[in-house]
Amino acid sequence: MDVAIVLFDGFDDLDAIGPFEVFDHARAAGADLSVGLYTLAPQAVVTSSHGLRIQPDGVLPPPSPEADATPGEEASAVIDSQDLLLVPGGGWSSRAEASVRTEVERGDLPAAIARFHDAGTTVASVCTGAMLLAAAGLTDGRPAVTHHSAIEDLEAAGAEVVDARVVDDGDLVTAGGITAGLDLALHLLDREFGSELARQVAGEMEYDPQGEVVTGSG
Amino acid sequence: MDVAIVLFDGFDDLDAIGPFEVFDHARAAGADLSVGLYTLAPQAVVTSSHGLRIQPDGVLPPPSPEADATPGEEASAVIDSQDLLLVPGGGWSSRAEASVRTEVERGDLPAAIARFHDAGTTVASVCTGAMLLAAAGLTDGRPAVTHHSAIEDLEAAGAEVVDARVVDDGDLVTAGGITAGLDLALHLLDREFGSELARQVAGEMEYDPQGEVVTGSG
Repeated sequence: MDVAIVLFDGFDDLDAIGPFEVFDHARAAGADLSVGLYTLAPQAVVTSSHGLRIQPDGVLPPPSPEADATPGEEASAVIDSQDLLLVPGGGWSSRAEASVRTEVERGDLPAAIARFHDAGTTVASVCTGAMLLAAAGLTDGRPAVTHHSAIEDLEAAGAEVVDARVVDDGDLVTAGGITAGLDLALHLLDREFGSELARQVAGEMEYDPQGEVVTGSG
Repeated sequence: MDVAIVLFDGFDDLDAIGPFEVFDHARAAGADLSVGLYTLAPQAVVTSSHGLRIQPDGVLPPPSPEADATPGEEASAVIDSQDLLLVPGGGWSSRAEASVRTEVERGDLPAAIARFHDAGTTVASVCTGAMLLAAAGLTDGRPAVTHHSAIEDLEAAGAEVVDARVVDDGDLVTAGGITAGLDLALHLLDREFGSELARQVAGEMEYDPQGEVVTGSG
């Protein structure tokens, strides 16, 4: 499983770094998994919403060649050799200058997210990253969740908002705010590699998973 | 309250970024607080234990001029205009090439930590950062905690290990592994600014504080 986390200026630090560390612990524990931090276009440094300056691993690689689902066709709910694309949130509700809102308005990132999803890639969001998935047309009529400050916006965008920490709708997996990204990543480890690995990583990180994971509309 | 988080190659990502984001949310909420990520010597990029490349904010500033406690004298348990120095862990137990262990062997960082503590700065650690505090001579005979993998090493180094998520011994505050850094930072917000701010930040980060905070030897 190749996990690509996409960064943009104004991303919320833990939305991205929490899942990044969860996935990297799984890799270190021997899971067949890679995880990287990417940008859509070449960018030397990405600045987070809290002022963290990160040098990304490079430009977002294309969807795996194995991910050859016909666009429009129902994508597989199981990640196999496909990539997982994880989208953090940040700045949607504070209307920061560099933010999810800016990226929604620019449109390039939502378009890329839609391309990945069409190619069969499972798409996940943490926090207000869900608003980027909504802009990509992924959440329309589907169960999803976001940071508490953006619940009404996500609903207004057509999603069927579920009151849960993580909502797993197969090829679309969304999490609540900030620290819910830890639970999203642990859930995906559980789903793809089994509960023993998820428990091992949570134990290593001394994290007691919080909240409820709801599958589909609950 | 000026919070300095000291980074070194091999630091554990969330040990540092978790508290960093907690403190920065407090700043954004209006608390009189600053937080920065620093290195001991000038360094353009710091690489974490999981491969995150961060551009630090600069070189660790000296202890606040207000922190003028005589070396050896009992430092105040209350942070006022003094700095808080937060030390992350990383790689102690895996014996990674760049790690807490390397920094303990090199000795510069423990010496700096001791200087800060002597000057009256409250020193905090997350995870195996406690082994750097031990190397600085701070934990001898004092209640402390660390990542579960290093409990015996911390005990062997002379600390009185307490089974808790966060151990607050006034000018020495230690936390368990990785995600316990969130609880340490929230506890320090509670201690220095009151429970309302701590609750507000935890709510914004959708984090339900975990484990027990023990004051002194419990």
